[in-house]
Amino acid sequence: MKQDRQLREGGWIKRMRQPISTRETTPGRHGKKPARVFGGDFDADYDVLCIGNAIVDIIAQCDEAFLETNGIIKGAMNLIDTRRAELLYSRMGPAIEASGGSAGNTAAGVASFGGRAAFFGKVSNDALGEIYAHDIHAQGVAFDTTPLKGEPPTARSMIFVTPDGERSMNTYLGACVELGPEDVEADKASGAKVTYFEGYLWDPPRAKEAIRQTAMLAHAAGREVSMTLSDSFCVDRYRDEFLELMRSGTVDIVFANSHEIKSLYQTASFDEALAQIRKDCRIAAVTRSEKGSVIVRGDETVVIKATAIKELIDTTGAGDLYAAGFLHGYTQGRDLQTCGDLGSLAAGLVIQQIGPRPRQNLRREAEQAGLTIPDVQTS
Amino acid sequence: MKQDRQLREGGWIKRMRQPISTRETTPGRHGKKPARVFGGDFDADYDVLCIGNAIVDIIAQCDEAFLETNGIIKGAMNLIDTRRAELLYSRMGPAIEASGGSAGNTAAGVASFGGRAAFFGKVSNDALGEIYAHDIHAQGVAFDTTPLKGEPPTARSMIFVTPDGERSMNTYLGACVELGPEDVEADKASGAKVTYFEGYLWDPPRAKEAIRQTAMLAHAAGREVSMTLSDSFCVDRYRDEFLELMRSGTVDIVFANSHEIKSLYQTASFDEALAQIRKDCRIAAVTRSEKGSVIVRGDETVVIKATAIKELIDTTGAGDLYAAGFLHGYTQGRDLQTCGDLGSLAAGLVIQQIGPRPRQNLRREAEQAGLTIPDVQTS
Repeated sequence: MKQDRQLREGGWIKRMRQPISTRETTPGRHGKKPARVFGGDFDADYDVLCIGNAIVDIIAQCDEAFLETNGIIKGAMNLIDTRRAELLYSRMGPAIEASGGSAGNTAAGVASFGGRAAFFGKVSNDALGEIYAHDIHAQGVAFDTTPLKGEPPTARSMIFVTPDGERSMNTYLGACVELGPEDVEADKASGAKVTYFEGYLWDPPRAKEAIRQTAMLAHAAGREVSMTLSDSFCVDRYRDEFLELMRSGTVDIVFANSHEIKSLYQTASFDEALAQIRKDCRIAAVTRSEKGSVIVRGDETVVIKATAIKELIDTTGAGDLYAAGFLHGYTQGRDLQTCGDLGSLAAGLVIQQIGPRPRQNLRREAEQAGLTIPDVQTS
Repeated sequence: MKQDRQLREGGWIKRMRQPISTRETTPGRHGKKPARVFGGDFDADYDVLCIGNAIVDIIAQCDEAFLETNGIIKGAMNLIDTRRAELLYSRMGPAIEASGGSAGNTAAGVASFGGRAAFFGKVSNDALGEIYAHDIHAQGVAFDTTPLKGEPPTARSMIFVTPDGERSMNTYLGACVELGPEDVEADKASGAKVTYFEGYLWDPPRAKEAIRQTAMLAHAAGREVSMTLSDSFCVDRYRDEFLELMRSGTVDIVFANSHEIKSLYQTASFDEALAQIRKDCRIAAVTRSEKGSVIVRGDETVVIKATAIKELIDTTGAGDLYAAGFLHGYTQGRDLQTCGDLGSLAAGLVIQQIGPRPRQNLRREAEQAGLTIPDVQTS
């Protein structure tokens, strides 16, 4: 058979790089006005702009002993260098690959709900970078960050899933270390109702500058800024800076799980941590695994149930999809109860499959769960 | 954070290239004698040697209309060139990646059952090639084919899964076109109880030479040779050559599904095709989807039930895993009924997940299904 020898590694997917708004798979999405507008955001171009490490997940199952033998902290995001990446991969079982990255998963989730999502994140111009760009574009997310030419390669995280469904991540940051203020697209920073970023961005050296610049542009345009605390060990690395972001008003809405807020305030008491976070940000949404979540806004407290699931397969993406559901509801002007229910719905779906982004269409799932966005015309 | 900038694309997985027999994840597997020996194969180094196109699967869901709009033949393996690969990928939804390739899946299945498997197949020395090598090594398969330096890149197949679970494949052969007789490892060809190859290997230009050479070495060592007819369109492309392989005795055992044997004998009657194939090879195992399978050997006929499944998710790998179960049983000296039951078991598991290789340990699954291999010592 005759084969085209001109093909370069990843070359046959280069066409994906056209702007999302011209792609035939998402007809008209970015020309559409939101069903219900929110606050002063009548003129928003995007509902949610997400900023995060652009990572391809390499996912395999393992037993508990494997984590211990290899010194992997269970349930955490373990940062690794090249040498350790080689060692762990040589010991890893057969894997599957899927686009991931915390904020990238959230952007994909928002788009799946039918929201208008954008993403900033750094890949390299290699095969995994092309796969990453394909997947987020194919989900309908506007993603135009210039890929790095050459090394380091696109980031990857080896995720080991134990029989209890818990995931333990081992992340090689690769090209993510190059994300910086030059990657801030001012129109998106100013034009998104909510900008959302991950605390993990304090690990690479210059991403925090990009965040501060984006937050400034967003607030200048009357938008809101949100973050996730990402991981309790990440909180431990950057506690003072995260608290400063919240207390200075750089961040309006905070997502966290119970471990992370306890780490943030260095307390063993969830209630004490919750009391503290009320004072430090405008809204906090705190997830508690199978206990659901709690949303606080000033003196207000909204308790959200977790959705019932058939079988817990892989917790990867649970927090990211909770944030996606919440932010989708929030940017459509829904009340906090509905925002939390949408978060629970998406998180409940993603933990019943392998990989960090639900295969279901979340808009359809929300409709089936009676959580539809009312189709209010702004006449 | 300080990152190692020396990392090359795929570089952190280069260490995988050590021979499988020295890897710590598969302790002693290749030093082990089989539990029960078969025929004249007391001295076999491997149970099954598989030869096939080494392909990474890119898997996404789509609706029926997508197949029609894009001219994809449903249920078939559609060969594509670079231009079409670019077009289809630009239209494909968010995907996941997993090592695949028909005979590669069979090798992985045999290893998962606890059999000693080897594989010949051509990848390039790129990121997808490294992923492919990792996955098959990590499953415990001996895989030492020299990777191609440079282009074309590692093969990939875009697999679209419709809501009925049927998969439609679109394969860019890439580096597979370079597999040739120079890739035949004589010790493995002579040392495997059964050599198994895929009919798909008639698509690349020189793989058929490798097959004929391997079959010659195998038969000279008193081993058996097996093939799968792969796909009814593939049968249509190479009908005369496949019949010649069977009638000349180059192939002893044939795997096919009902469409493929009907295509082979150009008849609409399954019974007529079955009557014909009895005469053309020593054993034929013919799968019939939810109707199970039929095994014929001369006048003997063994009817095998399909295993009950909860939900059909993705048929990718069904035939490959049937062959894995059958060949594992066969090389352990089991009767045809048990061989077929093992095939049904593995096929039934793989169609209840996304991707072509079951995540379960098949040895454990076989034990739970009461299909254990008796631990007979050859004293």
